Amino acid sequence: MAPQMGTLLSYRPDIKVLDATVRDGGLVNSFYFTDEFVKKLYLANVKAGVDYMEFGYKASKELFDVDKFGKWKFCDEDSIRSIVGENNTKLKISVMADVGRTDLETDIIDKKDSVIDLVRVATYINTIPAAIDMAEYCKAKGYETSVNIMAVSTASDKDIRQALELLGQSAAVDMIYIVDSYGSMYPEQIRELAEMYTETGAKYNKVIGMHAHNNQQMAFANTIEATTHGVSMLDATMLGMGRGAGNCSMEQLLGFLKNPKYKLAPVLKFVQDEMLKLKAEGLVWGYDIPYLLTGILNVHPRSAIDCVKKNNTDYLGFYQELWDKEC
Amino acid sequence: MAPQMGTLLSYRPDIKVLDATVRDGGLVNSFYFTDEFVKKLYLANVKAGVDYMEFGYKASKELFDVDKFGKWKFCDEDSIRSIVGENNTKLKISVMADVGRTDLETDIIDKKDSVIDLVRVATYINTIPAAIDMAEYCKAKGYETSVNIMAVSTASDKDIRQALELLGQSAAVDMIYIVDSYGSMYPEQIRELAEMYTETGAKYNKVIGMHAHNNQQMAFANTIEATTHGVSMLDATMLGMGRGAGNCSMEQLLGFLKNPKYKLAPVLKFVQDEMLKLKAEGLVWGYDIPYLLTGILNVHPRSAIDCVKKNNTDYLGFYQELWDKEC
Repeated sequence: MAPQMGTLLSYRPDIKVLDATVRDGGLVNSFYFTDEFVKKLYLANVKAGVDYMEFGYKASKELFDVDKFGKWKFCDEDSIRSIVGENNTKLKISVMADVGRTDLETDIIDKKDSVIDLVRVATYINTIPAAIDMAEYCKAKGYETSVNIMAVSTASDKDIRQALELLGQSAAVDMIYIVDSYGSMYPEQIRELAEMYTETGAKYNKVIGMHAHNNQQMAFANTIEATTHGVSMLDATMLGMGRGAGNCSMEQLLGFLKNPKYKLAPVLKFVQDEMLKLKAEGLVWGYDIPYLLTGILNVHPRSAIDCVKKNNTDYLGFYQELWDKEC
Repeated sequence: MAPQMGTLLSYRPDIKVLDATVRDGGLVNSFYFTDEFVKKLYLANVKAGVDYMEFGYKASKELFDVDKFGKWKFCDEDSIRSIVGENNTKLKISVMADVGRTDLETDIIDKKDSVIDLVRVATYINTIPAAIDMAEYCKAKGYETSVNIMAVSTASDKDIRQALELLGQSAAVDMIYIVDSYGSMYPEQIRELAEMYTETGAKYNKVIGMHAHNNQQMAFANTIEATTHGVSMLDATMLGMGRGAGNCSMEQLLGFLKNPKYKLAPVLKFVQDEMLKLKAEGLVWGYDIPYLLTGILNVHPRSAIDCVKKNNTDYLGFYQELWDKEC
């Protein structure tokens, strides 16, 4: 389909919002959310008109110790059903499956037996064929599929074009995501990527999505920039909860979108009642200078997460170390 | 002059950066900065290659009680000189003068007797003729001048065009600023404004500037968006210090600009040594949800400042009140 454009007053009915609070936020607390929290989040998303809610990862139990993570790293069918029942709502349910870290055969059951609607395959640019295999497996099982190309800020245009062409040609792939894992991209770059991706989208009938990180306080700006250029699946999280600097916040995104089906009030209520509690309990995420610095240098935020965790405010020392280690 | 455009790798020598920490940040602490702080800020700006440093307001002592504000609300010549001496550096010195709140005749002395280089006149769209009078007075005294049109998000295109035409025709006005006082604007809107302003700039040989607020975490994004569309005077503050949600942060801006004369290290050092101290002492500024909500509704942040000061986290209640009061 041709990418749609909008104005600041009209709205595009093709735009869909995905809540990734438990999945990306799970990287902050090792997925230890209470059932009560997840249930309230689910109800808030339903009320807010959010289109998809991602419950977590389908991580391999061979590779990851189930005793070392909360259950949303694994997203068993029963875990999800204990929250949503048969999910008789308009909200669709999503899980993420990492290339090389998922046991498809055991963990992805037939869609007819599952409340999950969408499986999003997370891949780096160099494992696209494996990602396509996974999407094909999930599509054959009956799911919607997405392939999310992570850390795209480190990939060359040539590689991205080739990846898009491969993904475009696969009938099993419904959506393709731009993922700015390092939060290093500026709107100008998002614009160029959005144009490349939506070109493929138009050619092969794929939906294009945006998943942003807030290292440079650009998650929201980049998300709406992508929207302006035809991207239509938008990831957000409550209070921006997500690894390191976090993501585009749901309260910002729904405050911006003009489709009357989206309601800001349930989001505000959830943030004040539940998200502030997580902050008060000591969970740390959101924009901070160390994340800005890894963003500027376009490197993985791991050292910044470490720096913030240690309450190290020697920003200059950290920056110099980053240069030595990463550049 | 024709507005210049750049790429993400090159740089535009026409771009200039103005540090407004003491001036906009003074709205957070009633201008009670210590001399030591201001001196260190001055030295950091000099080292960082910042082009202008704004020391505060030239507020009327008839209208404002000098015992109720720090000295940077008034910016006496002696106060500035006690920090900069003769200012034998490349850094230029700026002050802000509000329309209707400044005693030009007593407080703006001849440039030859002053270390001040630039007087920025702050005006609303309905007092442009008064602003031009002030700019003419200051220009006749020998200063560079700017007219900063505040709260431009509430003005109509027609009024803005008329204001720009008036300002353009005045030979006394060197610079014209886009000021998003409410932090309510999105990059798409900044783009349109930047095009309107730079058109006037090109026609009448005026420099165009951008002063952003961070209510929607858009201060940096909007500042670089403006830059992309030919705006060349960019305001920023250390750690984004400024009224309410604050401003575009200097560390973000200098981390982005490619002109090798700009150095990030002195800024990081100043932020970690001095700005974190202000935070630790209890000064509050920066992005928070109440500011997001006044930003979304395009209203003055005063009620959000109040809400944050009271530690009121009933965002939904605050939002509903805002609607009742302001919409």
